[in-house]
Amino acid sequence: MPSLNRRDFVGMLVLAGTAAKAQADDTSPSPGTDVTRRLARFVVSSKPQDVPAEARKEATRTFLNWVGCAVGGSRHETVEIALAALTPFAGPAQATILGRRERMDIMNAALINGISSHIFDYDDTHLRTVIHPAGPVAAAILALAEYRPVAGREFLHALVLGVEIECRIGNAVYPAHYDAGWHITGTTGVFGAAAAAGKILGLSEQQMVWALGLAAVQPVGLKEMFGTMTKSFHPGRAAQNGLTAAMLAARNFTSSNQAIEAKAGWANTLSTARNYAEITGNLGKTYEISLNTYKPFACGIVIHPTIDGCIQLRNQNKLTAGQIEKVDLRVHPLVLELTGKKTPQTGLEGKFSVFYAAAVAIVEGAGGEKQFSDKLVRDSQIVALRDRVTAVVDSSLAEDQVRIAVTLKDGRRLEKFVEHAIGSVKNPLSDSALEAKFLDLADGVLPSSRARQLIERCWNIEKLAAASEVAKAASA
Amino acid sequence: MPSLNRRDFVGMLVLAGTAAKAQADDTSPSPGTDVTRRLARFVVSSKPQDVPAEARKEATRTFLNWVGCAVGGSRHETVEIALAALTPFAGPAQATILGRRERMDIMNAALINGISSHIFDYDDTHLRTVIHPAGPVAAAILALAEYRPVAGREFLHALVLGVEIECRIGNAVYPAHYDAGWHITGTTGVFGAAAAAGKILGLSEQQMVWALGLAAVQPVGLKEMFGTMTKSFHPGRAAQNGLTAAMLAARNFTSSNQAIEAKAGWANTLSTARNYAEITGNLGKTYEISLNTYKPFACGIVIHPTIDGCIQLRNQNKLTAGQIEKVDLRVHPLVLELTGKKTPQTGLEGKFSVFYAAAVAIVEGAGGEKQFSDKLVRDSQIVALRDRVTAVVDSSLAEDQVRIAVTLKDGRRLEKFVEHAIGSVKNPLSDSALEAKFLDLADGVLPSSRARQLIERCWNIEKLAAASEVAKAASA
Repeated sequence: MPSLNRRDFVGMLVLAGTAAKAQADDTSPSPGTDVTRRLARFVVSSKPQDVPAEARKEATRTFLNWVGCAVGGSRHETVEIALAALTPFAGPAQATILGRRERMDIMNAALINGISSHIFDYDDTHLRTVIHPAGPVAAAILALAEYRPVAGREFLHALVLGVEIECRIGNAVYPAHYDAGWHITGTTGVFGAAAAAGKILGLSEQQMVWALGLAAVQPVGLKEMFGTMTKSFHPGRAAQNGLTAAMLAARNFTSSNQAIEAKAGWANTLSTARNYAEITGNLGKTYEISLNTYKPFACGIVIHPTIDGCIQLRNQNKLTAGQIEKVDLRVHPLVLELTGKKTPQTGLEGKFSVFYAAAVAIVEGAGGEKQFSDKLVRDSQIVALRDRVTAVVDSSLAEDQVRIAVTLKDGRRLEKFVEHAIGSVKNPLSDSALEAKFLDLADGVLPSSRARQLIERCWNIEKLAAASEVAKAASA
Repeated sequence: MPSLNRRDFVGMLVLAGTAAKAQADDTSPSPGTDVTRRLARFVVSSKPQDVPAEARKEATRTFLNWVGCAVGGSRHETVEIALAALTPFAGPAQATILGRRERMDIMNAALINGISSHIFDYDDTHLRTVIHPAGPVAAAILALAEYRPVAGREFLHALVLGVEIECRIGNAVYPAHYDAGWHITGTTGVFGAAAAAGKILGLSEQQMVWALGLAAVQPVGLKEMFGTMTKSFHPGRAAQNGLTAAMLAARNFTSSNQAIEAKAGWANTLSTARNYAEITGNLGKTYEISLNTYKPFACGIVIHPTIDGCIQLRNQNKLTAGQIEKVDLRVHPLVLELTGKKTPQTGLEGKFSVFYAAAVAIVEGAGGEKQFSDKLVRDSQIVALRDRVTAVVDSSLAEDQVRIAVTLKDGRRLEKFVEHAIGSVKNPLSDSALEAKFLDLADGVLPSSRARQLIERCWNIEKLAAASEVAKAASA
């Protein structure tokens, strides 16, 4: 049996030093070390009118896209299982489960809606950090909005702030933190959810500091879970954890004053590198939500240029599969590395086949979740066209580019160079494309009139007297 | 605005490789890499009779000590706040909040009871890793036992297994993981809670693998929180997270098959070093619970030898403060480094003063939570004796040793050498000392007849038809 060693003793008594340090911090924060407090102060003092119209517009697009994804994923087996497992322990029917008729307490609603929104991996992406920012934040505060009434304007403001906090923290530790193995959406998302929920709850600066501390101790998610149901659990649990943090802090449940930057705090413990200037620089002057993007296609982003170009060629030339002799792609090297499956057999495998993606885009004129069904992946017409698609690497191409040449049976040759794929920062999805994506996701879940009403409420979120009107319209 | 770079693309598509890898793992696990599955198989296949009587006895002591700590902490402000914050969202009254009259759903009960049990930092310690093993595991399964009936024998068996899993995982990453900043009780405790709850739920091997995976993505706790309420939140939330993991897995919510050992799994992501042999070696042959220890005194372990020796001198010589000229301590170097406060002003500060601890031990003959009250720390008689205590470092002493010399006003000199402080692995707390500690903790919370009944039920846990009888007796 081991006897006590020095380490044991130090471990048992770190308490001493920490308690003393926390007191010192209260009275004399050194410049550059009060990262957590500066973030808290920013969130608490920010006003809706401080946020530029452009950022608020992007937040509205972010919210619309997120609601669509949550509604679209709401009938998936992953959600059914989570509901079956957790309903016996759930509280009062306080909040809507989007796209369904069940209602749950706000903690469980935040969890389930966060899960639903990530199921198709179709939600928004902050490309600089690969954070999916809306999930943890929107799931937390939309549930909260049904318990604690909040006007749409304040709601959208809280969404902007939550996204700001999680993406800034993400910027500070990316890529080291992500490379280490963390699923960054769930680890930074807790902060975003806590900050946004805390804003709606009206926390004081000190309470907001504590909320961020309670968020720091509850990171969620490892990349190892990609390809399993647990990946979608990450943003959902992050939402729930952040909401819990805010609720506890609102009652003065104490935590550290330096949860992010302390020696044994979040950034040092969860990342091998960090740059706090990314967190505190230009606070309130720039907004990370302005960099948010939305996937036009329900698959990995490397094959988006190909799908984009194929749909354009199809629509401009009224192409049908029968006309086509062959499709030759020149692609960025990563495309074949990551999506080089020649003969996918399932919808999920189809997402990793640039050959299938090109074929289905030409036949269907789309690349939504429906285009990656098991049925279509085995469709004889699409399979036949898929086998006439070739791809070669062209190192001169950027990641959001592709060169497509379609040779027709009549001898014609059609070409398309995609300079920036649709959905990239330089070629954002239009509002109408976002609506189309939303309607496609809601199809089969909500009646189309209801889906259109929901879209309207999302676009008008800042004018709504109660943000909860969105949740109500998303109930099945 | 940043454009897409290679990392973004890889990030978006790790999914591809991971899904393929997970499939390969299913069919051909390499030797030495199936850590998670081997743990799951062990937990699922273990039977109560496989556990030696000695380990079951230690598990009974662990459980008794834990129940006492939870009852003792149950009226603390930390618990009051957590209850006030979370009750509005809680589910059916399924489980007892120990030491109180409230009942909550099992998820919230696991959280609150886990919090209560750690408040005085008085719970059990696996000294090799400084994990407090019982908290996350016992809080999860005692709540579960009120929802899913389980005999005391199976309950205790699940406790043994949960402690085994968390301590083995802790052994594999300690000290690197702890040094990095993690509060190891909350990060490994999730696994223990998931395994124990999963055992009671009768999970299959695959479900147990998934439960461990769901636990892996929900670590809780940073050392930065020591000295704040959030420290106690760690074991509570770990209990709740583990219970959630088991419930989801029981419904076939999928996660990775290699959550612990995968490249982007728990051990690689949360620790800079790891030794998987600590996890899989001698599984079922040795039991970590046999190494569990219980604090006799409600303070950091470095001053336990001093308190132990002072109480012995007092009792053997019927000492009173008035008789004493001075007390001279020769202590291990860490004692002054960590508990060298000369004039503590609060109960919490008293825990970091070897001078106060020696004085109060002589006056009160004890070192429980009551001896570290604000009132006693300011008691004039104790303060006067405290100021007659000196301490010098003696590098020849081990950490669990002390040399005490008491000089009396009548000129006599009394000496005591403590070779192994009470409560250390080599000098364990006796059963009757555990009972006395329990009664002291329960005093003022439960009537003493009830406390004695509760102690009886804990001692007889293996004979109870329903483990929930313990929870019922712990209701105020």
